Amino acid sequence: MRKIQVIGIGAGDPDQLTLQAVKALRSTDVFFLLDKGEVKSDLTRLRRDMLDAHLPAGSYRVVEARDPERDRSAGGSAYSPAVGDWRGARAGIYERLIAGELDEDGTGAFLVWGDPALYDSTLGILEEVLARGAVEFTYDVVPGISSVSALAARHRTGLNRVARPVQITTGRRLAEGFPEGVDDVVVMLDAHRAFRRYAEEDMDIYWGAYIGTPDEILVSGPIAEAAPRIERLRAEARERKGWIMDTYLLRRNPTEDRPVRNRPTRD
Amino acid sequence: MRKIQVIGIGAGDPDQLTLQAVKALRSTDVFFLLDKGEVKSDLTRLRRDMLDAHLPAGSYRVVEARDPERDRSAGGSAYSPAVGDWRGARAGIYERLIAGELDEDGTGAFLVWGDPALYDSTLGILEEVLARGAVEFTYDVVPGISSVSALAARHRTGLNRVARPVQITTGRRLAEGFPEGVDDVVVMLDAHRAFRRYAEEDMDIYWGAYIGTPDEILVSGPIAEAAPRIERLRAEARERKGWIMDTYLLRRNPTEDRPVRNRPTRD
Repeated sequence: MRKIQVIGIGAGDPDQLTLQAVKALRSTDVFFLLDKGEVKSDLTRLRRDMLDAHLPAGSYRVVEARDPERDRSAGGSAYSPAVGDWRGARAGIYERLIAGELDEDGTGAFLVWGDPALYDSTLGILEEVLARGAVEFTYDVVPGISSVSALAARHRTGLNRVARPVQITTGRRLAEGFPEGVDDVVVMLDAHRAFRRYAEEDMDIYWGAYIGTPDEILVSGPIAEAAPRIERLRAEARERKGWIMDTYLLRRNPTEDRPVRNRPTRD
Repeated sequence: MRKIQVIGIGAGDPDQLTLQAVKALRSTDVFFLLDKGEVKSDLTRLRRDMLDAHLPAGSYRVVEARDPERDRSAGGSAYSPAVGDWRGARAGIYERLIAGELDEDGTGAFLVWGDPALYDSTLGILEEVLARGAVEFTYDVVPGISSVSALAARHRTGLNRVARPVQITTGRRLAEGFPEGVDDVVVMLDAHRAFRRYAEEDMDIYWGAYIGTPDEILVSGPIAEAAPRIERLRAEARERKGWIMDTYLLRRNPTEDRPVRNRPTRD
């Protein structure tokens, strides 16, 4: 039976690999590296460097494939179908990779930035491949340091406050309103800088880009002061590198008896 | 200047240490191991085994101290003050450890299960020690694999569903009602098994105890079927080992136009 390992490789710092991940790398015959296009070739190189650092040359094989572009132009309610098409297209690619490039008793691996459990589609795609029934395999997951954990560590702060909850959400959702029932919110996948809408609220922001890499940028402070600085640094970095991966924690200062606000104060 | 490292050591599997954590262990002169009492001596031993595995004998020093018991009998609104007293008492102990056991240019470390950013008090206590002003030091944080990431990996599931949020909260909060605005909720610190109150809802549960250790127990499935099994296994394990550390993900099956429910269906 073919075996697949979904290996969380951390948020960008090669030293965020766990010992379990290194062992998993060493037991892999074929690595499947999905490339999102030239602009993210930095990320492909970083993964190759990790393999070079931990595996004897010639002991493994790498198969690269082009990850289909997601239709990010689809807005609003079209979001889920666009994601669905994209996952279907990816399932076809994964199926061909596993069936065509892996021996029947071989072990393949997908390397996932951060933690495979957070905003990553690999597990869903593998389930979809299994459901199609054209190829059989077992799979395991190796947890990784998420960009959320890495962000908190670099800012030396907790994600939650004592005995309180924390929500992890997307920029798209944050743009619709501050989540109910929480004051601590981690935001991922925020291409549109939804934090700007909260710049007049009594909140702190802990922001980071390229966390754990030599390009790392960190900004924290009251959002009114930090937001313009983040906007500027983010635009400069994105221009310079051609891509950006950033994450942030919004921490609302709780006041007693504050009415529930579900709308930001400005548009 | 004294330096302190707050090192996340993963959720129980020694192979969940990151390469960064191993390097941090190797650069430490004195490890401060806080012991919560005999019932958790398994955990103290596990930490000592990690040190033995990665450090040459005689290259480091361990200082053990008794962690003051938290007053868990205080219920309801007394929760925060009890936590405050406990943190104050711990700050006194940490201050004496750092000032008394660490040379002025030495590096000390606190080893934190899981990730120091999630439901751990170490960072808050260090800030409190610094605020007291009796001892100066710098500190860094090494992120770790949280029990949340480890749970999801062992169940081979994501924490969030596509483009949706996930909330991480406590058993105490879950007992007050299912969080608003989310269908995926990770629950930590649930000594009172708050999940039982949702046994008649249309939800799945992914539960794990002693995750990543030889004692690991995993249960998943529709909560109506899984909850009684979890209760039984949890009680047996707690009786056998004298302590339990468990975590779970509650996943509500979304239905269109379901009214917002803030109360469980039974008491």
